[in-house]
Amino acid sequence: MEGAGSAVVNTYPLASYTFGTKEPKMEKDTSVADRLARMKVNYMKEGMRTSVEAILLVQEHNHPHILLLQIGNTFCKLPGGRLKPGENEIEGLKRKLTSKLGANSPALVPDWQIGECVAILWRPNFETTMYPYCPPHITKPKECKKLFLVHLSEREYFAVPKNLKLLAVPLFELYDNVQRYGPVISTIPQQLSRFQFNMITTN
Amino acid sequence: MEGAGSAVVNTYPLASYTFGTKEPKMEKDTSVADRLARMKVNYMKEGMRTSVEAILLVQEHNHPHILLLQIGNTFCKLPGGRLKPGENEIEGLKRKLTSKLGANSPALVPDWQIGECVAILWRPNFETTMYPYCPPHITKPKECKKLFLVHLSEREYFAVPKNLKLLAVPLFELYDNVQRYGPVISTIPQQLSRFQFNMITTN
Repeated sequence: MEGAGSAVVNTYPLASYTFGTKEPKMEKDTSVADRLARMKVNYMKEGMRTSVEAILLVQEHNHPHILLLQIGNTFCKLPGGRLKPGENEIEGLKRKLTSKLGANSPALVPDWQIGECVAILWRPNFETTMYPYCPPHITKPKECKKLFLVHLSEREYFAVPKNLKLLAVPLFELYDNVQRYGPVISTIPQQLSRFQFNMITTN
Repeated sequence: MEGAGSAVVNTYPLASYTFGTKEPKMEKDTSVADRLARMKVNYMKEGMRTSVEAILLVQEHNHPHILLLQIGNTFCKLPGGRLKPGENEIEGLKRKLTSKLGANSPALVPDWQIGECVAILWRPNFETTMYPYCPPHITKPKECKKLFLVHLSEREYFAVPKNLKLLAVPLFELYDNVQRYGPVISTIPQQLSRFQFNMITTN
């Protein structure tokens, strides 16, 4: 463990990826209140919610960018979602990525390489707030969410649901921008700081 | 790399450690302006400053706490400091930890186990601001600082310089508290969220 060098992540130009569209993937809830209510119902049935999200990296102008799904005009989220009860988190994240960004034709779906877990977040109550630790005295957290780095190959085809936009947002735009991106996405730059990005410029 | 489980960190009670005092270690600069001026002089002589800092973890009430050195009544910092030109970062961090927290008697100095690099910060200019990435268009950053997790044994003796206080601060106190702890220390909870803390209660 001692002296572990920083992990190297190959990062390819945004221009080396191809983007198409597919049928819309509607949000299950139309409001935050609906979402928290559905969370409560599911908790009664299945216990703690476990969810997984992916950090997909590309580069432009030698600076790392993250792929975010934009819903409507402002709200952004990482691709991912809730695991089925008992589902393996790696397999579950692959399933969610294919559902969100994979083409309908299986041959075109990326071979998702799920890498390092970079963050774990806890939801202590049926509220929107999540913490990077399970707060003291919380014995029954309501959700545990894990963020994984996903290593993209040099060429991939992404099929973006028609009701969503896929944005490549630079780290410097996310950093310290909690108002625009929320407390989780805005701290991705800190969670990735230990990685060394190998910017590959093949184009 | 796929499916890498979260790393487990053993964390021992604060009460299992012993704290003594030693001669004062005065700060080299008496103001931020002095510090930045000295940084500039050193940069001319030696090029980019490289520094290393340690995250030392203990537990109380089953919640992780970080050991911070407090100077005066408000300013807190992680133990660590600047590397000598060409010095190995692991050896340099051990040297700095012994200088800041080791007893004068070598037999009592902890056998520092330097673990995972959890963050890398860049200073683009001779200013106080640091970023968790090297900003675009910055080809000659002025400092690169690495934060390492240091794995403490169950028992250790720390000798704290008389002009400093050693505090054990809980993660929930650091979180989102940039006003009190600054942008680096206040995001340690996010940088540690991927670890699973094995709280050992031997006392």
